[in-house]
Amino acid sequence: MTPWTRLAEVLAREKLDALVLSGLPNIRYLTGFTGSSALLLATRQGAVFFTDGRYRLQAAEQVQGAKVVVARGALVTALLFSVKRRRLRRLGFESRRANYDFYAALRAGLPGIRLRPTAGVIEQLRTVKSEDEIVALRRSVRLNSAVFEAGLRQVQVGRSEREVADRIEYLMRRRGGDGPAFETIVAAGLRSALPHAKPTHNLLKKNEFIIIDQGVILDGYSSDMTRTVALGGLGQRARRVYHVVLEAQLAAIAAVRPGIQAAEVDRQARMVLQKHGLEKNFVHSTGHGVGLEIHEPPRLGRREKTRLEAGMVITIEPGVYLEGLGGVRIEDMVLVTALGCEILTPTPKELRVL
Amino acid sequence: MTPWTRLAEVLAREKLDALVLSGLPNIRYLTGFTGSSALLLATRQGAVFFTDGRYRLQAAEQVQGAKVVVARGALVTALLFSVKRRRLRRLGFESRRANYDFYAALRAGLPGIRLRPTAGVIEQLRTVKSEDEIVALRRSVRLNSAVFEAGLRQVQVGRSEREVADRIEYLMRRRGGDGPAFETIVAAGLRSALPHAKPTHNLLKKNEFIIIDQGVILDGYSSDMTRTVALGGLGQRARRVYHVVLEAQLAAIAAVRPGIQAAEVDRQARMVLQKHGLEKNFVHSTGHGVGLEIHEPPRLGRREKTRLEAGMVITIEPGVYLEGLGGVRIEDMVLVTALGCEILTPTPKELRVL
Repeated sequence: MTPWTRLAEVLAREKLDALVLSGLPNIRYLTGFTGSSALLLATRQGAVFFTDGRYRLQAAEQVQGAKVVVARGALVTALLFSVKRRRLRRLGFESRRANYDFYAALRAGLPGIRLRPTAGVIEQLRTVKSEDEIVALRRSVRLNSAVFEAGLRQVQVGRSEREVADRIEYLMRRRGGDGPAFETIVAAGLRSALPHAKPTHNLLKKNEFIIIDQGVILDGYSSDMTRTVALGGLGQRARRVYHVVLEAQLAAIAAVRPGIQAAEVDRQARMVLQKHGLEKNFVHSTGHGVGLEIHEPPRLGRREKTRLEAGMVITIEPGVYLEGLGGVRIEDMVLVTALGCEILTPTPKELRVL
Repeated sequence: MTPWTRLAEVLAREKLDALVLSGLPNIRYLTGFTGSSALLLATRQGAVFFTDGRYRLQAAEQVQGAKVVVARGALVTALLFSVKRRRLRRLGFESRRANYDFYAALRAGLPGIRLRPTAGVIEQLRTVKSEDEIVALRRSVRLNSAVFEAGLRQVQVGRSEREVADRIEYLMRRRGGDGPAFETIVAAGLRSALPHAKPTHNLLKKNEFIIIDQGVILDGYSSDMTRTVALGGLGQRARRVYHVVLEAQLAAIAAVRPGIQAAEVDRQARMVLQKHGLEKNFVHSTGHGVGLEIHEPPRLGRREKTRLEAGMVITIEPGVYLEGLGGVRIEDMVLVTALGCEILTPTPKELRVL
């Protein structure tokens, strides 16, 4: 079933004549358009895509499955005209991806028409990836791992976190990526205990954890990987923490299969940490979907009832953060398959001492 | 007058008890907070800043002029509580910077309270820069020009546009910038005729225009500069076009002073181009404000009635784009002063043949 067919089913079920899409990743998902100015009116009978004059050529080349309208003035004005001409009566719009001004323009321009805020309709369709999307995600993951290996050469005593992060992001572009999927994290020593540390000018030292969390965008699709490495040997406690996190990560991956609740995968990681008294030091959720955006549904958190489905692509990334010692996070991307899962990330996970 | 005092005046004039701010650059402008999760309730009597637990320490260190509340749940819930406790009755919110869900949460949570969409209130305050902001902008401009000079070394026959752009963005970070303020443009040959060209894998050749449009963010403040250079000599027509654009740019700069309408500055550039029959090939406006965002008011367009004021920092960037020949754009940042203006960008504007 194409996304368009699935969308038509959702519209029928929700008793909507059409959905107004203003979120660019959702519009890209449905139409293939990669530009920065677009609206989409998706009716049960077909879709109309709106852009401005700058994108005339690009829209003609890229947009699939929708009629293209190049608006002379505001896109929303062209869209209002289309809604009225088609006599649509019940219209959904994306409440998280529409700003108030856009909503107000719809409300004022469509008297008598029912406007219903919707959330996550397309995001829900996007959770299960198509074959083409899986190919794109595999390529993105492979590029990210290749850049990681090349970047490791910069991990040397006396280099700063920033230098390493800058080099990684440079390599992402040099090797054909669109750019980083998020701000690359390089966090060494005590700073590795901060889950969202920004790279600083602090210099790398021996015998400390270094967390590297990086993702690249390639042809629109994001990847996401974390490895924790060290320059020179680590103390016994640090090595123990590393292996506990790795065990937790492997346990969570082992649980991934169609039908399992996201919360249950998260629980598998937590149970391992709990056994070692480290559960309180795992302060985030176990993972998230990845695709056209770096953070997508499903979330693999403690209370997420979503059941995994074959074709979902998610991260598995438990971490332990100890003030005064440092932190460890190990993250792979995995594809949910009919029988279980496939680990997409090819980078080894044994503790690397550089 | 501090921004807070000016904001209190606006609230009084607009008959609002308070303004709810959800736009991060506006919140940063007022409070100094650089994180990614924040709301601000600015009343006539004082302000309350809301963030989540991740930013407890950072908010305590950074936030000036507002009471800090670290919300346990959703920030908007904490804000609603504050509004009710203060018995505020007439509330403005930022219509362009609030999504529908945020508006709906305010609407549902504040029965009987008047909610008024506002647009550009803080953006208006931000147009005139403080002394500290001007210092920050000068530093950002200087870094951008230094990176440009270093990047020119990559402008060689056989290098691709992408290689040069990647190098420039790498240098921005290596020299202490937060990153590029926008996607760096390197557009050579026929592609220089596209005002918003993305760098491609096309290789640089001799005797063609190469447009380089780059900006860096340093300590939150953006810079923006364009230069058009060439590898080896250019034909007579190309050289003539270059000098006409430069003349237009100088004419626009010469017009910048407090009290002049933005449209009049734009007109000065257009008049020079018109004299040479090139006005139709100038397809964008003459400039824009720059500060915490790369594009801020005022816009220097054909119909902009805004009058310039001392302390505004704007770009002056006329361009001419000729299909089949290429394009030329020359862009500086200038500070409006009491008597006229000061060109902030130190990079020379004579045609550079590398």
